[in-house]
Amino acid sequence: MANAQKIGPVARLVLQQCLSARLQVQPASETQPAQFVEIDRGLLVYTCFLKGCTKEVLEKMVTTVLTCCLSEMEDGKMTSVLQLPASILVIPQATLGGRLKGQRMQYHNNIEKTAGLELYTQFVEAIQQVSAANDAWTEKGCVVKSGTYGNRQVLKIDTNGPYTHLIEF
Amino acid sequence: MANAQKIGPVARLVLQQCLSARLQVQPASETQPAQFVEIDRGLLVYTCFLKGCTKEVLEKMVTTVLTCCLSEMEDGKMTSVLQLPASILVIPQATLGGRLKGQRMQYHNNIEKTAGLELYTQFVEAIQQVSAANDAWTEKGCVVKSGTYGNRQVLKIDTNGPYTHLIEF
Repeated sequence: MANAQKIGPVARLVLQQCLSARLQVQPASETQPAQFVEIDRGLLVYTCFLKGCTKEVLEKMVTTVLTCCLSEMEDGKMTSVLQLPASILVIPQATLGGRLKGQRMQYHNNIEKTAGLELYTQFVEAIQQVSAANDAWTEKGCVVKSGTYGNRQVLKIDTNGPYTHLIEF
Repeated sequence: MANAQKIGPVARLVLQQCLSARLQVQPASETQPAQFVEIDRGLLVYTCFLKGCTKEVLEKMVTTVLTCCLSEMEDGKMTSVLQLPASILVIPQATLGGRLKGQRMQYHNNIEKTAGLELYTQFVEAIQQVSAANDAWTEKGCVVKSGTYGNRQVLKIDTNGPYTHLIEF
């Protein structure tokens, strides 16, 4: 389409460094306490898919998360999370798709829930696969953890400077 | 200018809810331990000013922070931080102005440091003034705390769901 224009982003990531983080993946029930995943030193990946996001975009997102230089080495220089190496915590965060209308947020640009879950699952799996293929990363005991799509993301983080970045696709 | 176009945002906020947060405002020195500010239940305001940000934009930012409905009531409905009421922690976060170029971030759009400090100071003061004028908010013991512009923002947060939102101006 000659007149096709990119209206806005199709995915949004917010990245933060952490010293440790803990995320609830299952709320407490009558019979079971809440369940959590944890990472030590690593990268928090708040993830939001918007309308129009495709598998091609997803691949670019995975590469970006794993190769962008947003993890701090001991000498203060920045490297990738794979090179540092450090763990990764993926946090589904659909609220990042919100647009302020008056005093309230609207989420009309967010991807439909089933498609979002599928992209999210593929995103986490691809990050796990690529990072697990990096021997130096796995030998250091680094892990990829992720939140439960659609759940409330009960999160606790400790940082030495979150170094917050927004990356849109 | 008839052909003037808005190239991009002139300021960027990332807002998160927290149950508590602690931010370093002065690193440890040879003679003194590090100094921190803390809030309990409240709103985290990661703040970044870009080139072209003006005092007019700043006023809009202050109003938005104080009135947008991103704070959760006990019944699950959302209200403003002033109405909840809850505390506010302003975190300077120039990294939010970064744009990915290859694998590295560039900050060419960030405002010049002196102008940024001036805007940041005015931003915090305006939030403090407007919220302090709200009797119900002050009577509940709510406070506005802020990080030191230009410092590393050593931050620790505990949330019941960060409910992360991006707002651009």
